[in-house]
Amino acid sequence: MQNAGGDHHDRGSIPSSAGTDTSVAAELATTNLKDDAAAAIPSSASDLKHPLRDRVLIRSILSRPDGGAALAGQRIRVLGWVKTGREQGKGKFAFLEVNDGSCPANLQVIVDSGKAKLGSLVATGTSVKVEGLLVAPPVGTKQRIELLVEEVLHVGPVDLAQYPIPKTMLSLKFLRDFIHLRPRTNRISAIIRIRDALAFATHSFFHENEFRLIHTPIITTSDCEGAGEMFQVTTMVGEAEKLQKGEVGVAAKPGIPQKDGKIDYAADFFGRQAFLTVSGQLQLETCACAVCDVYTFGPSFRAEHSHTSRHLAEFWMVEPEIVDADIQDAMNWAEAYVKYMSQWLIDKCHDDMELMDDKGCIDRLRMVASTPFERISYTEAVKILEEAVKGGKKFDNKVEWGIDLASEHERFLTENKFQKPVIVYNYPKGTKAFYMRLNDDSKTVAAMDVLVPKVGELIGGSQREERYEVIKERIMEMGLPLKPYEWYLDLRRFGTVKHSGFGLGFERMLLFATGIDNIRDVIPFPRFPGKADL
Amino acid sequence: MQNAGGDHHDRGSIPSSAGTDTSVAAELATTNLKDDAAAAIPSSASDLKHPLRDRVLIRSILSRPDGGAALAGQRIRVLGWVKTGREQGKGKFAFLEVNDGSCPANLQVIVDSGKAKLGSLVATGTSVKVEGLLVAPPVGTKQRIELLVEEVLHVGPVDLAQYPIPKTMLSLKFLRDFIHLRPRTNRISAIIRIRDALAFATHSFFHENEFRLIHTPIITTSDCEGAGEMFQVTTMVGEAEKLQKGEVGVAAKPGIPQKDGKIDYAADFFGRQAFLTVSGQLQLETCACAVCDVYTFGPSFRAEHSHTSRHLAEFWMVEPEIVDADIQDAMNWAEAYVKYMSQWLIDKCHDDMELMDDKGCIDRLRMVASTPFERISYTEAVKILEEAVKGGKKFDNKVEWGIDLASEHERFLTENKFQKPVIVYNYPKGTKAFYMRLNDDSKTVAAMDVLVPKVGELIGGSQREERYEVIKERIMEMGLPLKPYEWYLDLRRFGTVKHSGFGLGFERMLLFATGIDNIRDVIPFPRFPGKADL
Repeated sequence: MQNAGGDHHDRGSIPSSAGTDTSVAAELATTNLKDDAAAAIPSSASDLKHPLRDRVLIRSILSRPDGGAALAGQRIRVLGWVKTGREQGKGKFAFLEVNDGSCPANLQVIVDSGKAKLGSLVATGTSVKVEGLLVAPPVGTKQRIELLVEEVLHVGPVDLAQYPIPKTMLSLKFLRDFIHLRPRTNRISAIIRIRDALAFATHSFFHENEFRLIHTPIITTSDCEGAGEMFQVTTMVGEAEKLQKGEVGVAAKPGIPQKDGKIDYAADFFGRQAFLTVSGQLQLETCACAVCDVYTFGPSFRAEHSHTSRHLAEFWMVEPEIVDADIQDAMNWAEAYVKYMSQWLIDKCHDDMELMDDKGCIDRLRMVASTPFERISYTEAVKILEEAVKGGKKFDNKVEWGIDLASEHERFLTENKFQKPVIVYNYPKGTKAFYMRLNDDSKTVAAMDVLVPKVGELIGGSQREERYEVIKERIMEMGLPLKPYEWYLDLRRFGTVKHSGFGLGFERMLLFATGIDNIRDVIPFPRFPGKADL
Repeated sequence: MQNAGGDHHDRGSIPSSAGTDTSVAAELATTNLKDDAAAAIPSSASDLKHPLRDRVLIRSILSRPDGGAALAGQRIRVLGWVKTGREQGKGKFAFLEVNDGSCPANLQVIVDSGKAKLGSLVATGTSVKVEGLLVAPPVGTKQRIELLVEEVLHVGPVDLAQYPIPKTMLSLKFLRDFIHLRPRTNRISAIIRIRDALAFATHSFFHENEFRLIHTPIITTSDCEGAGEMFQVTTMVGEAEKLQKGEVGVAAKPGIPQKDGKIDYAADFFGRQAFLTVSGQLQLETCACAVCDVYTFGPSFRAEHSHTSRHLAEFWMVEPEIVDADIQDAMNWAEAYVKYMSQWLIDKCHDDMELMDDKGCIDRLRMVASTPFERISYTEAVKILEEAVKGGKKFDNKVEWGIDLASEHERFLTENKFQKPVIVYNYPKGTKAFYMRLNDDSKTVAAMDVLVPKVGELIGGSQREERYEVIKERIMEMGLPLKPYEWYLDLRRFGTVKHSGFGLGFERMLLFATGIDNIRDVIPFPRFPGKADL
């Protein structure tokens, strides 16, 4: 079996380091290290040196345009885990493919039997820290540089009989039972890097555009109406238990159960019922209506018994709130943000993207980064779907004006009809939340959804109703009480401004970018009904 | 009363825009706008123009080295809220100090009575969007540029009789009852910008140093032992309520209360008891032991009935986990990170820092950014404290080897003894968690705390016990069950590596940086016993 990261012919002799080219030789001449001339680190080593690390990241070697070839002759330390290893040359040498998670590629590390007990090194999963010389490999091998070990500094062994993550290809489903070890596999570590890149791209995009990050609350006493079922946060259950166990120092009246069967939330930690947030939007608006453009990037929760490949009980959401923006502006910002993230991945994560099973994912990102998104009104969308039905297309859900578009409808629009991202706007007010701005037709609200191939809805947003009388009317029309929303109404009472915002499901973006099928594989610690490992 | 942002003499005539200097005239000559020569926007306007905004951020005018003077002659739009406003010249003009939250300074905006009903503009809190010409103010005024309005595009009025945030100086304590409006005040909006800057500085620091961001779970079934009381996350309480109300579709067996008085967590959402995280450390280690240096930056929770100015039930924490790092390395990283944030604020938030009541805060940041942190062992720290007691210093808590250092001890060390940040390391093992690495003396563990003036403990960290046999022993020695930690032990069983990490309380860093006294004022939506507004 060919290993992705390296290429080792059966070789019985140590590769020579004499093959260092003239540029390295020139660099060697400029060395300013005094301790050992033979081991001198050329001045370009300053690229590799970090003031707080004595090891070198494998990425900083292998991601160079020359694959690291020009570094031949340098003495370095690396640490990582053995992906594959084998003894060769009748037990004289061990060839190890070592990965440190800094990039998908492995560094080939060669240890001779004088340096360590080779049998303890070759098991997949073994950690090693070694010091050695970077050398040019023999002509004909795939890699451009390899490490000839002079000293083995650390070995963390693995008993292969016990290790649940052998080197054979494992399914993502299988790995979900080992979430503490799956980051050691190629695809999951690539997803970790892609996720990290998208998070930093997000902060970069909003900071370049002068948005302020706001930490909206996780525990909330507000309900962002209609967003979904909520988890309750309490200290009463535990106190009830402690009380039963006869522990002292527990509140005398834990609230559960009272004699009348009701729950007395005044006895709970916050003195009232509290939940995990389903969206930071309403709270975020308080800051937008003070310091203008803001965003939040935090966890969000749904206590829904969904066992699909698209839902999590805990997920991350990016929510910008933009002042002086109408629904068209919100669409412009959403499109710019998705394009920015797509381009970021193309520029910075190409190697990781190539590891994905979905070989079309890079092309999809390129398409999204360069193609204007289609924009159609909800009414137009329904017409297109109705035409499709007339043309013989079958949907499970009925198509008619007024429905909430189902996932199959959304995917038809983006994947079949337009084959690119589609923004649908101006939805029937009956399907949407009270805070969305009523259009002049009094039938629709200024809501928009961004639909992308592979995923369907990636972003949902709206222009917010900034008119005090109108929003008050809408709250009452929907049968909601005014009192819990008084603070929200204050934003319209005092110095109201036009504003819009949207929410991007961060894991949805990851599904879209990587082509991974199941959302449980793009978050490090997935939570869904019946599962919250670790 | 002198207003911070502007300076308007009683003036009865419109200031002239004839004072534009030659450089602006030169720029005007290069204009490439065709619509209206008189209103031509000089080419330097491209600095101000944003492809997705038609308004200009006030910061981009006033934060220029020349205070915006060179922009005179440009036609722009701004949006913001009136800080102070008054009519002058017998009702001919309104002078408005307008703030848009992009910086602490206000833009002086002048509207004549032909453009709007001036009485509706001058109330504090009114929102306005206006278009006009930037002009040089008369000689002798403080500001370098002001806006002469040609068109009023939007007014969001305020009824001052109802508005809870008048322009008088309000105490931070008073403002805590209006968390939805307090971002409109000078100090709270400055704190929002400082908080945003520190968050971005954090991501920048760790990315520059090749750490990967990991989203550790918020809902957890693990207990990061010893970190504190936990909130429980459940859907059973609500279900019990619904059941009582006779709602259909509710789980038949909600678990609370059972007849035997016990709680059946198998009926809960995750099939077991679940909590809000107190630290992402243990989960983060799974990723560190796969892709090396990682960090998490997320919310953390403590269900403790603390009503102090230093504790929150919900707060944000930055936790890096560093592979191949011992306790000394962890100290190096912690010091580098705190210095980086301090320098970042000095460089980028000077104006906001100057708004703080604590006039020493900028000097304190400078000191921290430039002074090496003192490093002393716990044993040395106790000796110093004992000396102080001998010298007459009174502490509420007894000083002797083996105690957990109290806040008063920590602050004495950093504020009195050394007058700079102090790192205390190697604590008695009895005071610390099982995962901290046992030192060779078998009495202490490789833990460290970073203490800073004004706050005390800012960071807590440790080298993690990477030796399988030792950590297993420690878990048992502390009377903890092994089974819940089997996954954690796997990290030591399979390819173990030396690693260290720490946690920085993000709000503590804000207290330290701003000198604000109460932690409830440095988080947008504070949660503490009895309080979870919005």
